[in-house]
Amino acid sequence: MTEQRQAGYRVSDRNQVKRRHDRGFYDHATVHALLDAAMLCHVSYVVEGQPFCTPTFFWREGSRLYWHGSSASRMLRNLTHGEPACLTVTHLDSLVLARSGFNHSADYRSVMAFGKAKLIEDPQEKERALVMMVDRLYPQRTAGLRPATAQEIKATSVIAMEIEQASAKIRVRGVVDDDEDYALPIYAERIPVITVLGEPEPCPRLMSGVQRPATLAAYAANRSLQDALTEAYLNSYVKR
Amino acid sequence: MTEQRQAGYRVSDRNQVKRRHDRGFYDHATVHALLDAAMLCHVSYVVEGQPFCTPTFFWREGSRLYWHGSSASRMLRNLTHGEPACLTVTHLDSLVLARSGFNHSADYRSVMAFGKAKLIEDPQEKERALVMMVDRLYPQRTAGLRPATAQEIKATSVIAMEIEQASAKIRVRGVVDDDEDYALPIYAERIPVITVLGEPEPCPRLMSGVQRPATLAAYAANRSLQDALTEAYLNSYVKR
Repeated sequence: MTEQRQAGYRVSDRNQVKRRHDRGFYDHATVHALLDAAMLCHVSYVVEGQPFCTPTFFWREGSRLYWHGSSASRMLRNLTHGEPACLTVTHLDSLVLARSGFNHSADYRSVMAFGKAKLIEDPQEKERALVMMVDRLYPQRTAGLRPATAQEIKATSVIAMEIEQASAKIRVRGVVDDDEDYALPIYAERIPVITVLGEPEPCPRLMSGVQRPATLAAYAANRSLQDALTEAYLNSYVKR
Repeated sequence: MTEQRQAGYRVSDRNQVKRRHDRGFYDHATVHALLDAAMLCHVSYVVEGQPFCTPTFFWREGSRLYWHGSSASRMLRNLTHGEPACLTVTHLDSLVLARSGFNHSADYRSVMAFGKAKLIEDPQEKERALVMMVDRLYPQRTAGLRPATAQEIKATSVIAMEIEQASAKIRVRGVVDDDEDYALPIYAERIPVITVLGEPEPCPRLMSGVQRPATLAAYAANRSLQDALTEAYLNSYVKR
């Protein structure tokens, strides 16, 4: 899984960051790190000319993205045979209050990934994907779970999308005002925004003596979600 | 702005929650509260058959949604004359680790809003929208800022979309396993997820004596972002 920073996605009109070119990145390392620090994405697809934007969970293996859903869902019914899709992940890092309305902004890191969405038809490939859907988040968890039933596997669809093109857009600048505006008596600040984990709440119906497994150590209270997800990703795909 | 809980958006194939009907809501109060607790949305639109999913900031006035961008951005160039769009907001509330892979889930609250996106052409309407873009987040802030220049107003485009239809989808259930699985010696838990504000970082170049205005009180360290946004919304639109 070693990636050279210079290796990257092909740039064309579809994935080029149109404004603020300085905020655009196309290298695999940058794009993949932002994807691996997230579990929630938004997928866009088109049904008879109408765009839909559906939030869902996803995971990455190399340059392939996966997401899943009920076989009955609208998204799954319309992303099965190579339809074009766009999967976007956004990390919001701060609110930026500047000295003019125009310079109000936010720090963020986002990725847009483009490709063709295909239903995984092969039973073995699907079963492996369903294992990784859980184990990518919670390393080695599936082995200790009640096994999936045939009915559950049938009721779940998994979509795979090879990333044809992608771009990352990153702003990490805090307050940036026009030069002459710094002399104005106007308050300006950056407010950090972070998504964190709370104290885990064990199921009230746990069998007595059942302990939290050490493999969940990444998910500790007050930790940032993106750090936990990145650690889980490394444990699932890189260190094994 | 008083809304009756029973008033709601028309349901059709486009906005009906297809699976898990019990998680679907269409009433204005539920849909609007979820929108007002967010600033980040993802907008889907179509360019020559290719769907795009762009993260951006938005705000609501009644049943109208607004977002903005550089006049040069791809999204703005392709959402100007009533093209169909879908604006989605997602709040992630927890990760749910169950006793089977199938029952792994998450608590979340999301809204999908459908309509036709139109560029605001009228200069006065655009100027008012640009004021609210800032003041909806930071009540009364624009009045104390360096005024916008004609060039800035020209460089910014604002899109408005009347919500034709919308749906909310909510899961607040924590761990739910199959009845017989509770008897298994498997660990299960709910991990809360919350997006919070950090300690505000005043601009290092503030003029001496410039203090943080009281109107920013909603944005206090350790507060949840959605609470701050909801309070700011009430202060901007409801209490004025």
